[in-house]
Amino acid sequence: MAVYTDISGEEFTELLTRYSIGNFRSAQGIAEGVENTNYLLLTDKNNYIATVFEKRVNADELPFFMGLKEHLAKKGIPCPRPVEDKQGNVIQDIKGRKAAIVTFLEGAWPRRITNAHCKELGKMLASMHLATQDFKLSRPNAMGQSAFKSLFELDKAKADNFLPGLKDDVTQALKRLEEEWPKKLPTGVIHADLFPDNVFFRDEKLTGVLDFYFACNDYYAYDLAICLNAWCFEERAEFNITKAKLLIDSYQQVRPLTAEEKAAFPVLARAAALRFLLSRLHAWLNPVEGAFVKVKDPKEYLLKYRFHSGVNNISEYGI
Amino acid sequence: MAVYTDISGEEFTELLTRYSIGNFRSAQGIAEGVENTNYLLLTDKNNYIATVFEKRVNADELPFFMGLKEHLAKKGIPCPRPVEDKQGNVIQDIKGRKAAIVTFLEGAWPRRITNAHCKELGKMLASMHLATQDFKLSRPNAMGQSAFKSLFELDKAKADNFLPGLKDDVTQALKRLEEEWPKKLPTGVIHADLFPDNVFFRDEKLTGVLDFYFACNDYYAYDLAICLNAWCFEERAEFNITKAKLLIDSYQQVRPLTAEEKAAFPVLARAAALRFLLSRLHAWLNPVEGAFVKVKDPKEYLLKYRFHSGVNNISEYGI
Repeated sequence: MAVYTDISGEEFTELLTRYSIGNFRSAQGIAEGVENTNYLLLTDKNNYIATVFEKRVNADELPFFMGLKEHLAKKGIPCPRPVEDKQGNVIQDIKGRKAAIVTFLEGAWPRRITNAHCKELGKMLASMHLATQDFKLSRPNAMGQSAFKSLFELDKAKADNFLPGLKDDVTQALKRLEEEWPKKLPTGVIHADLFPDNVFFRDEKLTGVLDFYFACNDYYAYDLAICLNAWCFEERAEFNITKAKLLIDSYQQVRPLTAEEKAAFPVLARAAALRFLLSRLHAWLNPVEGAFVKVKDPKEYLLKYRFHSGVNNISEYGI
Repeated sequence: MAVYTDISGEEFTELLTRYSIGNFRSAQGIAEGVENTNYLLLTDKNNYIATVFEKRVNADELPFFMGLKEHLAKKGIPCPRPVEDKQGNVIQDIKGRKAAIVTFLEGAWPRRITNAHCKELGKMLASMHLATQDFKLSRPNAMGQSAFKSLFELDKAKADNFLPGLKDDVTQALKRLEEEWPKKLPTGVIHADLFPDNVFFRDEKLTGVLDFYFACNDYYAYDLAICLNAWCFEERAEFNITKAKLLIDSYQQVRPLTAEEKAAFPVLARAAALRFLLSRLHAWLNPVEGAFVKVKDPKEYLLKYRFHSGVNNISEYGI
């Protein structure tokens, strides 16, 4: 939620000489976006987003992220499409950092989730999964189930500072998840962070999917379980079965879940809740001074985990 | 440097039905702007800035600020022009706050000040002063010379925490300023905060003047003295006489200074340095938790004050 790297009008003017996308008109640092610095860059031809990659993004992984967006955009998924410069390069050097210009998407992320949003999201998620099947690059999921235990090691000792008893609760949940975690499900490139603020709509029509910097290879159905957690609960973590049914049904209209995926779904939903409980707990216990980032409440995902812990069958999600 | 009031796509869509400026396409919270929340609002007709006024702006003063921008824009000064809705209103209510839509200005503020910028600035400042002469509304300068003493009262006791001896130095400076302050000079509406980040350029041509929320009635030449402080010193507060000469000369090409203004100029320059020393010192001694605002170094203006304190004649500024 900040501009970490300040780029001047002169620097943008120079950068644009490398491209064929028009002359500099304006650049505004955007308040959204936690990981990187984003500018809304207007030229006399069109609107673009210029992203400066800050230290949390590994430069070696940029070909994966840029290639994925290029691949998805070609297949008609509305996502920011990397723009090539005159030499055909997508990744640039500016002020000692890597940067890229991508196309601008219209719409806004929904502050209040409606049934229509969930229906649109399910279709888009399944389309994205089908579209990634012939994408050649891969990236392991550093925040996947196999990493949960070591992630929690870092915060275990202090977990009860957030909530007494949390250390034991999470330890038990991780043990249960290890026993239940499915060995083999349909796998491919997933978004892995498809929260409402990463999806744009206009008049309840989905117009864009953003922020692929957690994208990785993992179970497709796990991506759906992440969306279920992020989109189908109300403000006090009450489960909304109508939204869940719309999300999963519309997903299945494009890509039907296999019997194995359906059987494993409650486990995947628990894993997704645990994943965000762990990352939020870590951020809460280790605040970064002056990071300009609102720390999100870990409790929300603890409550969601508790809900899922009692679910044994995908039918309880409305299917 | 933050979005304080979050406006959804749906809310912007509704807001735009009150106007005749096209349908909602996109809204991006802008990272710049300390006082208010600003969105870059794109419709299918044009680009606009939507400002939500936060608590530091007094709603009673909005007619002054909006009227001033309207007045200046009509006279050809490139500033954000308030857009009227279908009923002819400029000020709106949204989410319990006042808001306004203004036109979008191209360009970017200069990170590195050149001679050409100072020349452009001088001309524009004088043109603005001439353009405000028939503006009917007025607003007292709450940060004017007569307020310095009471402003310092708030921080006097802690001033030496910032720098030992500062309390005595400022007390003496205030006393000297009181004795020297000119009784009567040409007066009108001034910008009063024309720092580089409030002025847009493209290819060294001035394309916009922004952020009129300190505008008030005071001596015209005091506005020029504020610009001299903000634009004509290098990084370690070294005075750049070339820039100062260009600024003042180009100002005089449009509006020649009177003999009284020239005589008083060193005093006005001291006052301007003191004004920003006092406000920065106040911000430094009274940090606001979670304000997302970088506290600026008061020392910079102490050094500038010290420079001006030895100046007795405007010729020492290159004239």
